[in-house]
Amino acid sequence: MLTIHHLQRSQSERIVWLCEELGLSHDSYTLVLHARRPDNGLSPDALKAVHPAGSAPVIVDGPIVLGESQAIAEFLVNKYGRDATTGKPKLTVTLEDGEEKYAEYLYWLNFVNATLQCAILRSLNFKRVENVVPEDHPTRAFIRANLHKGLDRLDARLTKVEGELGGNGDAYLIGDGLTLADIMIVFSLTTMRGFYPLDLSAWPAILRYLQRIGKREAYQRATSRNLLASELTL
Amino acid sequence: MLTIHHLQRSQSERIVWLCEELGLSHDSYTLVLHARRPDNGLSPDALKAVHPAGSAPVIVDGPIVLGESQAIAEFLVNKYGRDATTGKPKLTVTLEDGEEKYAEYLYWLNFVNATLQCAILRSLNFKRVENVVPEDHPTRAFIRANLHKGLDRLDARLTKVEGELGGNGDAYLIGDGLTLADIMIVFSLTTMRGFYPLDLSAWPAILRYLQRIGKREAYQRATSRNLLASELTL
Repeated sequence: MLTIHHLQRSQSERIVWLCEELGLSHDSYTLVLHARRPDNGLSPDALKAVHPAGSAPVIVDGPIVLGESQAIAEFLVNKYGRDATTGKPKLTVTLEDGEEKYAEYLYWLNFVNATLQCAILRSLNFKRVENVVPEDHPTRAFIRANLHKGLDRLDARLTKVEGELGGNGDAYLIGDGLTLADIMIVFSLTTMRGFYPLDLSAWPAILRYLQRIGKREAYQRATSRNLLASELTL
Repeated sequence: MLTIHHLQRSQSERIVWLCEELGLSHDSYTLVLHARRPDNGLSPDALKAVHPAGSAPVIVDGPIVLGESQAIAEFLVNKYGRDATTGKPKLTVTLEDGEEKYAEYLYWLNFVNATLQCAILRSLNFKRVENVVPEDHPTRAFIRANLHKGLDRLDARLTKVEGELGGNGDAYLIGDGLTLADIMIVFSLTTMRGFYPLDLSAWPAILRYLQRIGKREAYQRATSRNLLASELTL
């Protein structure tokens, strides 16, 4: 039996939303809800007892105890999320779908944690020392510029896809179909802003994209189960 | 024709090493070497002209211009690195290889950029403000503890694999065969220490692992071509 450990307002939002997108029956997995420690907002000790990283998400599946949201997402679509007819993992793009589409998919999927989420975390760290490190300190300015450049690229990408679809489709990162790249990125653009107050008004295509995400039935189901902190941010 | 843009002492070391491990003939791709700017050590403008991220690695393959080292690694093994007999991409693990091995592969592959490299970058940022943020500042101590916990997990993993192989095999992250997880992690444990002076002596299994990596013929070929800054670090 699959168990998913979900911590409120954490990267595990990706996984509970993914399960809704895959249409996994709520009977087919056990959801363990964890709350942040009231004293410091960090992960509770109960999560450390599940995985040495002590952070969410973690899944347990028989002998497997797996952390890292991107690893979990790939594991779940491969084991539990295959198309009944073709056998292909849902929400993924492969080389056989075309080299250019595959390259875009790989780029945006890995952009999330390798670049965007890390840039937000670095900005958040500096927010916490803002009383001693001035706003215009070269390191702080460098990190902020990096984050903004990443958001520029993302906004340009979404604008391009919107243009290609001519306003008639639901523009996601890799065209008109949702993929794991979208599943990964939305947390960083929404709930993460509850930790780091990132104003997205300079990136209107990102805001339009988040509105589209918020209209998805699976996203609304996860929200209605109180699994996403999306009221903060969409 | 495939072109690989390599910046000295950067994450593109992963890609030039990968090409050697895949046994790609040096005639089968064009290697463009970039040097860091002498004034500030950052990427040169020539890289910004190739990809808006302005950082390495970038590959160009026909109409495709692709950044993000993990995306490039996956693209290359799928397009250029398939086993001649089975057609399977080399250096990868799939669900068909066993669920537990697949889960370990996904975890360590994604641990690199999502957790380890980000923790080192965060530590490096704080090194650059160390004159104003004291060593024992809670944020600085938190980041350092996170990095050390990640290294503890890695050391424990390598010790476990060494034990399972009984000293008779070459212990890598996912057993006795090199995978993309190893290709991704070595830069963060070697050349990255030229930017952030991380002393690995508290993690002896990691040091033994790096010694094993350094004995690989493909790694030595990349070193002898002056593509890796490995003299710093192994």
